Amino acid sequence: MSRPAPLLLGLDIGGTKSAALVGDAEGNVLARVGGPTPADWREAVEFLKSSLRRACADHGCAPSDAAALGVSCGGPLDSATGVVYAPPNLPGWDAVPLKALLEEEFHLPTVVENDANATALAEHRWGAGVGSRDMAFLTMGTGIGAGLILDGALYRGRRDLAGEVGHATVWPDGPPCPCGKRGCLEALASGTAIGRMGRERYGDDTVTAQIVCVRARGGDPDALEILAEASRWMGLGLANLLHALNLERIVLGTLAVHAGDLLLDLIRRETERNCWPRVWEGVSIVPAAFGDAAQDKAALAAAREIFSSGA
Amino acid sequence: MSRPAPLLLGLDIGGTKSAALVGDAEGNVLARVGGPTPADWREAVEFLKSSLRRACADHGCAPSDAAALGVSCGGPLDSATGVVYAPPNLPGWDAVPLKALLEEEFHLPTVVENDANATALAEHRWGAGVGSRDMAFLTMGTGIGAGLILDGALYRGRRDLAGEVGHATVWPDGPPCPCGKRGCLEALASGTAIGRMGRERYGDDTVTAQIVCVRARGGDPDALEILAEASRWMGLGLANLLHALNLERIVLGTLAVHAGDLLLDLIRRETERNCWPRVWEGVSIVPAAFGDAAQDKAALAAAREIFSSGA
Repeated sequence: MSRPAPLLLGLDIGGTKSAALVGDAEGNVLARVGGPTPADWREAVEFLKSSLRRACADHGCAPSDAAALGVSCGGPLDSATGVVYAPPNLPGWDAVPLKALLEEEFHLPTVVENDANATALAEHRWGAGVGSRDMAFLTMGTGIGAGLILDGALYRGRRDLAGEVGHATVWPDGPPCPCGKRGCLEALASGTAIGRMGRERYGDDTVTAQIVCVRARGGDPDALEILAEASRWMGLGLANLLHALNLERIVLGTLAVHAGDLLLDLIRRETERNCWPRVWEGVSIVPAAFGDAAQDKAALAAAREIFSSGA
Repeated sequence: MSRPAPLLLGLDIGGTKSAALVGDAEGNVLARVGGPTPADWREAVEFLKSSLRRACADHGCAPSDAAALGVSCGGPLDSATGVVYAPPNLPGWDAVPLKALLEEEFHLPTVVENDANATALAEHRWGAGVGSRDMAFLTMGTGIGAGLILDGALYRGRRDLAGEVGHATVWPDGPPCPCGKRGCLEALASGTAIGRMGRERYGDDTVTAQIVCVRARGGDPDALEILAEASRWMGLGLANLLHALNLERIVLGTLAVHAGDLLLDLIRRETERNCWPRVWEGVSIVPAAFGDAAQDKAALAAAREIFSSGA
């Protein structure tokens, strides 16, 4: 008789929606309770606690049956102390001691990771990053952010800010970025940037990045040009990351998943063009494995890491 | 009676000069035998072997008394196998199995590191990087190359190419770089670039980067403008590295050491200007601790690492 595989608990905290999860060590979701994130942080924490108890009840277990609790949340946050500092998508969350509050309630080893890092862990352990030692996961949505797996482990940097590659400057004379700098990668190649280029090109306020991708797949030359332009910057940004870190795999999420091979091929070509052959050799740029389930998996992957390192 | 501290052996292989070293675990050089690097790689390896035996004899020890042998050498090379692949400064060295040849001779645990990585190890363990967990060491000489210490350990990347930040693109429309790309950091901010700007500005073929620095310290407005220009690019490149890796310390070698605070202050100001305040907070940009002794220390630091991990 083998010991039953350990249960993991997860909390995914988003600006509009949150979810509590019961899962296993392979990242499978066994129970899930989700809902809108209450605006007040104290109410949000109460909602998360009660959702987690309900998810456990749905699965027929107690929180104390689990090995660890992982939280995936927008940064800035301090993963060492588990304190969340004023994420842009969670107004009013200023220095919330989330890890302490959850440990007090559930008495489980708890880790709070920023969402890009947690998603990188999920893709590395269960998804498109499996088998790679040095990889980056990048979102291409509202913004561009990365989680870095280096020498097989999550690299967080001094204050959990590693992977802010969306704010690397790729065009010193480029357009202003909401962050206050100019020519940031995010201002030129994110879903937000592609949507803005689409609205300008078509003179139509309803155009989104998704619509640009659909039109490009249909052969629309304007849409193709927009994606080519965004890919030029993305390729430059990824090549810079590859020269700095000599990665073997880049996993692209959000828009890259929705837009498929058309966008990925453009990005691959532009990245290669900006790379030394020796740096490019053997690099694969692949879509993220988890679409809408990414955030659930991310929270469980954060729990999985604490369980692994504690085991 | 305590055990005597372990001896370390080192080999520093340069394009023009090489050296064999006996040192201790604190990076002190106890004996040193140096000379010009023979042009033929077989002769060079014989020279290195005999120099090492002589250095040991000078110190009154045998190679077998040492705990490890570290080699610092220009890349590309494979640190896992210890094979050196055609470094630009060592013509004719094509797939030389240096680690195997040295282990056969001396029967010591041997590691071959590229020189930027080995110097990063030396600065981190004994020099300007002491006490930091996440740091980069960058040369600012003929080229710009980095060694990265992340989470307290050397990060090499998939093929020992991590740290090639000199070939990150910082100006897409910038001047051509000898590597074939355009607007590489190295083409805009290295010692080579500063020397070239000086020769153009003064219409004088004898001007070097060192001379530009001396004139700048004397208040020469042309020289000051050249350093300001190079620092703008260097600051941008360093800021991009900080956003990607959230480092706490940057150690600058070569020209930054010779030029002193004038250049360092310009680089600090430009880096800060290109950084998010949260990313910049607490970062220090400091000169390398080891001037001309850097390569000796680098070889010993490479040996020290293998000794530490084996201990």
